Amino acid sequence: MSYCYGVDIGGTTVKMGLFESDGTLLEKWEIKSRVENEGKEILPDVAKSIKENMKNKGMDLNELDGIGVGIPGPVNSDGVVPKTANLGWGKKDVKSEMTALIPTKIEVANDANVAALGEMFSGGGRGYKNLLVITLGTGVGGGIIINGQALVGEHGSGGEIGHITVNHLETEVCGCGRKGCLEQYASATGITRLAKIKVESDKRETVLDTSNMSAKAVFDAMKEGDIVAAEIAEEFFECLGSAISSISVIIDPAIVVIGGGVSRAGEVLLEGVEKHFKEVSFFANKDTKFALAELGNDAGIYGCAKLIIS
Amino acid sequence: MSYCYGVDIGGTTVKMGLFESDGTLLEKWEIKSRVENEGKEILPDVAKSIKENMKNKGMDLNELDGIGVGIPGPVNSDGVVPKTANLGWGKKDVKSEMTALIPTKIEVANDANVAALGEMFSGGGRGYKNLLVITLGTGVGGGIIINGQALVGEHGSGGEIGHITVNHLETEVCGCGRKGCLEQYASATGITRLAKIKVESDKRETVLDTSNMSAKAVFDAMKEGDIVAAEIAEEFFECLGSAISSISVIIDPAIVVIGGGVSRAGEVLLEGVEKHFKEVSFFANKDTKFALAELGNDAGIYGCAKLIIS
Repeated sequence: MSYCYGVDIGGTTVKMGLFESDGTLLEKWEIKSRVENEGKEILPDVAKSIKENMKNKGMDLNELDGIGVGIPGPVNSDGVVPKTANLGWGKKDVKSEMTALIPTKIEVANDANVAALGEMFSGGGRGYKNLLVITLGTGVGGGIIINGQALVGEHGSGGEIGHITVNHLETEVCGCGRKGCLEQYASATGITRLAKIKVESDKRETVLDTSNMSAKAVFDAMKEGDIVAAEIAEEFFECLGSAISSISVIIDPAIVVIGGGVSRAGEVLLEGVEKHFKEVSFFANKDTKFALAELGNDAGIYGCAKLIIS
Repeated sequence: MSYCYGVDIGGTTVKMGLFESDGTLLEKWEIKSRVENEGKEILPDVAKSIKENMKNKGMDLNELDGIGVGIPGPVNSDGVVPKTANLGWGKKDVKSEMTALIPTKIEVANDANVAALGEMFSGGGRGYKNLLVITLGTGVGGGIIINGQALVGEHGSGGEIGHITVNHLETEVCGCGRKGCLEQYASATGITRLAKIKVESDKRETVLDTSNMSAKAVFDAMKEGDIVAAEIAEEFFECLGSAISSISVIIDPAIVVIGGGVSRAGEVLLEGVEKHFKEVSFFANKDTKFALAELGNDAGIYGCAKLIIS
C-alpha cells in the first residue's frame, strides 16, 4: 500500500488529509494559514506538518505517491499561481517550491476545481465523468469536470458560474461590479436579499422576519408550510433551474452536484431545482441527474488526493 | 511525407479533402450524400472515392495516416452514432464500418466540433487551445475547444450555445420548443425577425424593407449609415456580446471565433460584438480575443484532418 496527501489551502486554515492509494481517507487535520509576511511560511508549514505525519506513521518517501495541493485562486498548468490575495501571495511557483520541500510528485490546482474533483471521486458525483458542481454559499461557485478533468480555462476562471447574467433588468450591483449575476439570486446572500424585498412588500402573514433573515430561515419556513417562504423558494428554484439549463447546453454534464451552506436545505432544494430544470431544459439534457454534494469541507482534500491518484 | 483524408458528411454532400501530414490541404472535392435507403451507401461511397483518389495519386495504404470523419449529429467516444436523422441513419458504428472498408486509423466526431477544431488548426483560432467557435447561420451553432480537445459532453450536446436562454420574457417559440433562446436573436433568421418587428413599429425613414429582409440587408444598410439598421445591429451586438460574456465565465476561452453566413458582415460585426463584450464581461475574461472564422465550409475537412494529425 502506498499513500498520498491532500492539502487544501484556504485563507484561514489549511485542511490536510492522508489517503491510501485507493482513495481511503485515513486521517485528516488542519493547521493555521499564516498569511502574514506575504504568506511565505504557508508552504514550509505544510511540508513540516506532512513530514511529522510521515514520521509518526513510520512512512518512507518511497511509500509516498505524491501531494495534491488546492489553492484559493487561479493556477496555471505548470502549477504556478499568478497572485493569490487571500494568502498574501504574489506570483508563486507552488509546484517547484513544494517539490523542493518534499521531493515527491506535486500537483497544484484551484480549490473550486479540486472540490469538484473530490465530489466526482468520492462524493455526490461518484461514477460520473462529466459534472457540474455548484457551491451555494456566501457566493455561488462552480467547478466543471469534463471527461474526468477539471475545466480550468485560459485565465483559470472556468466554472465561475456565479457570474453568468440571469437578469438584464437588475439595478443592484453584484460583488463583481456587474448587474444581474446568478450569485445575486442563488447565493445565501442573494436569497436573503430577495426574501427581505419580498417580505417587506408582501402583506400576507409569514413567520419570516426581515431583521433575522437567512436562506435557512426561508427553507425552514417553507418546510413548515409558510406560503410567502414557499414563493421565495420557488423563485430561487426557477432561477437556479433555468441557469443550470443554460449551462447544460454549453457543457452538457451527466450530473449536477449541489453543495455549500444553502444546500443543507436538503432534498427539498434538490427536488425544487431539478423539477424546474426538467421543465425548461433543452431536450438533449432532460435526463441530466441531480445530487447533493456529500463531502462538505472535505471535498477539497479528496480532490487534492485525486490529483495524485489516477 | 504521409497523408490523411478529412471527410465532412452532410445531409446533401460529403466534403472531402486530402491533406499532407503537416496539415496542408492538397485537394478537395465533394460527392453526393445518398441518404435514401437509410443512408447505407454513404460510407461505401466515401470509401470508394478515397480509394480512387489514392489510386490516382499512386498512394499506398502505408502512406495513409488515417481518415477523420465528421457527422451531423452526436457521436460517442467509440465513434458510434446513436441516430443521425439527416443521413437516414439509426444507430451506426461508423468507426468500425469505415475501418472495414479502409483498414487505417479512423476517427469520428460531430460536425460542429470538427469545424471548431478546423478553425483552431488552420483558421481564425490558430495558435490557441481554448476556443469558443460560434456559427451564425440559419441557427446559432457552437463548438468549444478546451485544451485542444472538443468539449463533447455527456449527450454529445456540448457547445449547443444557440439554446442558452437570453430573454425570459420572450413570447415567440424557438425551433427547439423553448422560448428566449440565443438563436431567436443572433441567427440570420433571428436578426431578420427582429428587424421586421423594428421596421414595422418604427416611424423613421429606413432603406430596410420588410418584404425583403435579411441579416445581410441590415448590416449593409448599417454600413450605409441607416440609423434604424444601426439600432437593430446594436441590439444584436448587445445580445451576442452579453451571451458570450456568460459563456466565457463558464468555459473561459482564450479566443472567440465567429463564422457562418451572418459573419460575412465582417469586421463591423466583430468590432460591435467585441465592444459590447468588453463592456459587460467578467474581469477575468476582459482580454479574451475575437476573430472571424477563416475556413468557411472547409472548416469541417480541416477539423477532420486534425482528428488524425496530432
